[in-house]
Amino acid sequence: METSPTPVSLAGIEAAREIVYQTLTPTPLAEYPLLNESLGLRALVKHENHLPTGAFKVRGGLNFMHHFAREDSSHRGRGVISATRGNHGQSIAVAAARYNVAATIVVPHGNNPEKNAAMRSQGARLIEHGDDFAAACAEADRLATAENLDFIHSADPHLIHGVGTYALEIIETAQARGLTIDAICVPIGMGSGLCGVITAFRALSPTTKIYGVQAINAPSYYLSWKAGHIVNTEAPQTFADGIATSRPAPLPFEIIQSGVDEIILVSDAEIAEAIRLLWRTTHQMPEGAGAASTAATVQRRHEWHGQTVVNVFCGGNLDTETLRKVFAV
Amino acid sequence: METSPTPVSLAGIEAAREIVYQTLTPTPLAEYPLLNESLGLRALVKHENHLPTGAFKVRGGLNFMHHFAREDSSHRGRGVISATRGNHGQSIAVAAARYNVAATIVVPHGNNPEKNAAMRSQGARLIEHGDDFAAACAEADRLATAENLDFIHSADPHLIHGVGTYALEIIETAQARGLTIDAICVPIGMGSGLCGVITAFRALSPTTKIYGVQAINAPSYYLSWKAGHIVNTEAPQTFADGIATSRPAPLPFEIIQSGVDEIILVSDAEIAEAIRLLWRTTHQMPEGAGAASTAATVQRRHEWHGQTVVNVFCGGNLDTETLRKVFAV
Repeated sequence: METSPTPVSLAGIEAAREIVYQTLTPTPLAEYPLLNESLGLRALVKHENHLPTGAFKVRGGLNFMHHFAREDSSHRGRGVISATRGNHGQSIAVAAARYNVAATIVVPHGNNPEKNAAMRSQGARLIEHGDDFAAACAEADRLATAENLDFIHSADPHLIHGVGTYALEIIETAQARGLTIDAICVPIGMGSGLCGVITAFRALSPTTKIYGVQAINAPSYYLSWKAGHIVNTEAPQTFADGIATSRPAPLPFEIIQSGVDEIILVSDAEIAEAIRLLWRTTHQMPEGAGAASTAATVQRRHEWHGQTVVNVFCGGNLDTETLRKVFAV
Repeated sequence: METSPTPVSLAGIEAAREIVYQTLTPTPLAEYPLLNESLGLRALVKHENHLPTGAFKVRGGLNFMHHFAREDSSHRGRGVISATRGNHGQSIAVAAARYNVAATIVVPHGNNPEKNAAMRSQGARLIEHGDDFAAACAEADRLATAENLDFIHSADPHLIHGVGTYALEIIETAQARGLTIDAICVPIGMGSGLCGVITAFRALSPTTKIYGVQAINAPSYYLSWKAGHIVNTEAPQTFADGIATSRPAPLPFEIIQSGVDEIILVSDAEIAEAIRLLWRTTHQMPEGAGAASTAATVQRRHEWHGQTVVNVFCGGNLDTETLRKVFAV
């Protein structure tokens, strides 16, 4: 898809709500006394794992596909293609099926087998290519030209507006409870979630500190933020596949660069420990990316003592083999 | 609490809704293509694990405590006591805190440590006594007299009315989607969930077959249903603590006896396999009781081929040690 005529804006997120809520309902912002005790602060957990695809991205897919499939759209009748490690792809598969659009999804070899199975079951054509997300992305780009498909970038403005609806839900729920949010931690894959949070919070909750979270061995946005320009990395290494990205995209980089307070790096060991902590204290199971916010909160718990901190539990699609490894300690 | 002046009725469930929804929001009735493919039927999964305590029972606790704590109630100012394996106790702890009532919870020794920790963190006084639920129950009864506390039976009519609100949600969501529910599977602990389902479905969806589910080595309701009178068992043996009960209570027995189509028995191995199946296909983690409906559906999948079957995923409070064992295969 071409660059959207709509820049990313609060109005875009607000407009996405009525589209997203045709299919979804808001997710809980939960609080767990055991987790609070363990962290020494008030953690508000945003349960994006309660969505039908088990991850936040479906909000964006639905908003994108609504615009894509509109009667007056020049795209109508064409298929779409995208590359993914899974959650973005499930979002596109489900949204495409909802709007009767043919979807092709390219994943790298060795991708999470349960995410692959889910995308196939949701009606997408699944192609395995290359050794990492960047290679899958290049193949999707090639196929888009070869087969006259519209390539969906995982940080398209319509996607950002859609996923930004969870940020509005957080802000409004906290306000209804009389809570001031001191900080929010958001994992960064391609950055759409963090861009939605920045757009909504900078407008509506400007005193909240906004933290991005990346894995120590997949730090492309962290390095880019430090450098002030895009820095690509090679071969991101983390079991948290949802944040195993290596090439920041210009639009999310620009929004993140201007709006984030800090990007925190967490190790795979810290992420695994956060998965176990979340299970023990909430009995909700995150995937690696879904636990990254909590891993960052554990790391900063002394500094943030007593504060109200949102942990975006962005997804729960942990494959069984990884689950076994995480709990085999 | 004395026997309620209100018998269990559809009107009682409908009245409970406005009380329950002061605190909770409806839970999803989700559908997963991979689970459907695996079962050869259309499974509608009712996600009671999305509630704040991770289990359906909190609906009942809130309804009970609302009536208990009313200004004109003769109970006002007194504390409550109950016995539990965990989900009922978490419900009472959370609801009591919500209505400023002091709560004491008795659990057997060796109870799920994470459920114990959750109840303590929710503000309840927790007492460990005896070797099984029945022994904990007897101690709670003794303490109720000794300390002038109101004993809450886990199948009190107010509890049944409260938990019955999930049955109304299922019926209304299915109707809104144009679906006819052929069958519903409901795990039986003390029977409140099944009683709510029977009361709502017999009135509003009379053609739906209603199945209770128990563990092979904790079959007290099954034996009672077969015998036509209450049969107690000794030492229920199942890792699914939410359904490890041995002594049916008169009220739920009477409702179940008159309203259930069949009670299905499942083994611990079948429950463990259903936990793994649900994780692989839905990425939502049930406790043993929460997977029992799906275990029964797997057992009957050929007979039910092509049907629309509700699986009540009644809770997700699986402790870490049990999780490890279930996935160490």
